[in-house]
Amino acid sequence: MKMLAINCGSSSVKFKLFQVDNGTYRVLAAGLVEKIAEESSLVHMQWQGGVTEQNNRVASHREALEIIEMMLLDTKIVPDFSQLDVIVHRVVHGGEKFYQPVVINDEVTQTIKSLTPLAPLHNPFNLEGIMVLREKAPQVKQVAIFDTAFHQTMPEVSYLYPLPDDFYRSKNVRRYGFHGISHSYLAKTASHFLDKPLDTLHIVSLHLGNGASATAVKNGRSIDTSMGMTPLEGLVMGTRCGDVDPGILIYLEREYDLDSEKIDEILNAQSGLRGICGENDMREILKRIKKGDKKAKLAFDIFCNRIKKYIGAYAALLGRLDVLVFSGGIGAGSPDVRERVCEGLGLLGIQLDLDVNKRLNADIGCIDDGSKDVRVLTVATDEELEMVKQAYMVQ
Amino acid sequence: MKMLAINCGSSSVKFKLFQVDNGTYRVLAAGLVEKIAEESSLVHMQWQGGVTEQNNRVASHREALEIIEMMLLDTKIVPDFSQLDVIVHRVVHGGEKFYQPVVINDEVTQTIKSLTPLAPLHNPFNLEGIMVLREKAPQVKQVAIFDTAFHQTMPEVSYLYPLPDDFYRSKNVRRYGFHGISHSYLAKTASHFLDKPLDTLHIVSLHLGNGASATAVKNGRSIDTSMGMTPLEGLVMGTRCGDVDPGILIYLEREYDLDSEKIDEILNAQSGLRGICGENDMREILKRIKKGDKKAKLAFDIFCNRIKKYIGAYAALLGRLDVLVFSGGIGAGSPDVRERVCEGLGLLGIQLDLDVNKRLNADIGCIDDGSKDVRVLTVATDEELEMVKQAYMVQ
Repeated sequence: MKMLAINCGSSSVKFKLFQVDNGTYRVLAAGLVEKIAEESSLVHMQWQGGVTEQNNRVASHREALEIIEMMLLDTKIVPDFSQLDVIVHRVVHGGEKFYQPVVINDEVTQTIKSLTPLAPLHNPFNLEGIMVLREKAPQVKQVAIFDTAFHQTMPEVSYLYPLPDDFYRSKNVRRYGFHGISHSYLAKTASHFLDKPLDTLHIVSLHLGNGASATAVKNGRSIDTSMGMTPLEGLVMGTRCGDVDPGILIYLEREYDLDSEKIDEILNAQSGLRGICGENDMREILKRIKKGDKKAKLAFDIFCNRIKKYIGAYAALLGRLDVLVFSGGIGAGSPDVRERVCEGLGLLGIQLDLDVNKRLNADIGCIDDGSKDVRVLTVATDEELEMVKQAYMVQ
Repeated sequence: MKMLAINCGSSSVKFKLFQVDNGTYRVLAAGLVEKIAEESSLVHMQWQGGVTEQNNRVASHREALEIIEMMLLDTKIVPDFSQLDVIVHRVVHGGEKFYQPVVINDEVTQTIKSLTPLAPLHNPFNLEGIMVLREKAPQVKQVAIFDTAFHQTMPEVSYLYPLPDDFYRSKNVRRYGFHGISHSYLAKTASHFLDKPLDTLHIVSLHLGNGASATAVKNGRSIDTSMGMTPLEGLVMGTRCGDVDPGILIYLEREYDLDSEKIDEILNAQSGLRGICGENDMREILKRIKKGDKKAKLAFDIFCNRIKKYIGAYAALLGRLDVLVFSGGIGAGSPDVRERVCEGLGLLGIQLDLDVNKRLNADIGCIDDGSKDVRVLTVATDEELEMVKQAYMVQ
């Protein structure tokens, strides 16, 4: 059967088409449309027969999806979306309503819409993709996978903030966590790779991309995660600050007369690595460090220190640490980050093999030196594969 | 010589008078005036000859200081403030200007005043006390001790937030940390008690009172601390939330039209333990837990979990942990909190002797079972003694 994974972001649509037979998943095509509604958009698709690219302006998510359909038709992979068996949509925020994948119907789309205040930059675009594809392929089963769902196993002690009691009940203020599709994939993949049952493992998984988060996974269940009610909390990210003193927001409004919309923009788009050194791409930062750039080094150090502290915090919470997983563009791609993060973590049972860490060039690998208790893995995450696998289980 | 330590809060004045001879510090009198400017204030002084108490309304900090002077005169401990050798003032915020005690002059008071935007609820009252006592005792040497000073040793990687670069340089946004007088006392006291040089020890010190903070002390120097630019960040406190997703503040302003003044009040006065269970006094919370109260239990668990995570984070940062110190009203006073915090921290080398932990009834004691690497101490902090000792060194 043919299953298509769709991920509609605020200005992009990513997709991956799988041929699924007897528990094997083969990628038929994968690609994306980026910079939607900008002057020049970017369209890219890779498939067995080659690569398709174009740079015309793509005005809307609807147009992006139509282009994707056209490319699949042109390459004869599928004639049109209505010939697919399942379409799987990534939806960022499922609130407390969705703790597992669901087959999409009118009630589901209504509920996703009602959760918009919790994810104003994400849910409307996820929903747009769902709307367009339900219209174009009304007979095809469509499934929603929520990026918050994996974290719905968190206990109250982890998800409740120490705020006035009614903020949770009447204002939905709690920790939801994100990157759940990735953290779920990482936990299962680590268990499979190490050939140890997931329900016996204590894992800290790190998804380090332009957005970044850490999760404590105990016996297969997320028990705490660094992103919070919004994706702003936690680790230092490309352009997001992660944890900061909430008093700073009040200080900036009081002393500098910044309004909350401006502060929102600053904390989400002008902070993190970019705030410290003007650059949010870790590859560029590493190049600048090699040239002796001190601000780039500081950004790198602050980024890595924060991760180190989260590993310590989650190890303390788990009471025992068996596996540490690095993933995401930076986590799987940067030996320098992994080395700096793990430096001095011998007390937690973490000891890298620095040569293996540097040399590793595979989708998955073990980079500790075997002398201590914790297995350290790097894993290329695959959210689309996880989405399709989860959707396959939904009847 | 006679040295008086003064701590002017927003609605209270605390004091402790010491007789200092050849390196010995003897308390001649100690007390406080509370609920200044409220309908009924509370005046209390304890001295060798007994206890003095009264409940008349005290209208101002000036009046409070005059009452303290009068009590010292009545009990014949000193005739008036001008007969003191040194007066030591606690000042909350020293910014980056003050990293050690200073003899107060006009320039110092001006600088303290200029730091008011960083501590609007504290510095003006500290300054008020200084002004009154400089007027009443112009010949007496007066020294300011800053609650931020101990943390000025933090490296850039710890004190800089991942915010736009110029926020630090032009808006003074950075981690300062507080409770420095207490953390300094705790580190030195631990070193002395364990008979190990301070510059060889890796310590995590916990000051757990109605305000609460954790500090990582490496070889005698603070390298990170949980309170931030303001005393709102970090641990869960009596009425303060500590760490929360900064996105929550933006969400509350956007979706519920709360302004930043209201949010400030909520996060500082209606959150923390009080937010979760309606009660900010840990002793009352423990009583309610014994009666089966679930919200009180949740508040207790969230409070302790946050501390556990900070211990793990700081252990990871220190690379080795030698000493864990519990202090403050809750830290030194509650065996239940200490037991819950240390539960499952064997991986960090922490193992309490639960009987000793329960029985301990002294200003300082060791409560680990000796089987692992970390010495766990409870210490009754003494900020006034630390202030006077630091002031004694200033010439």
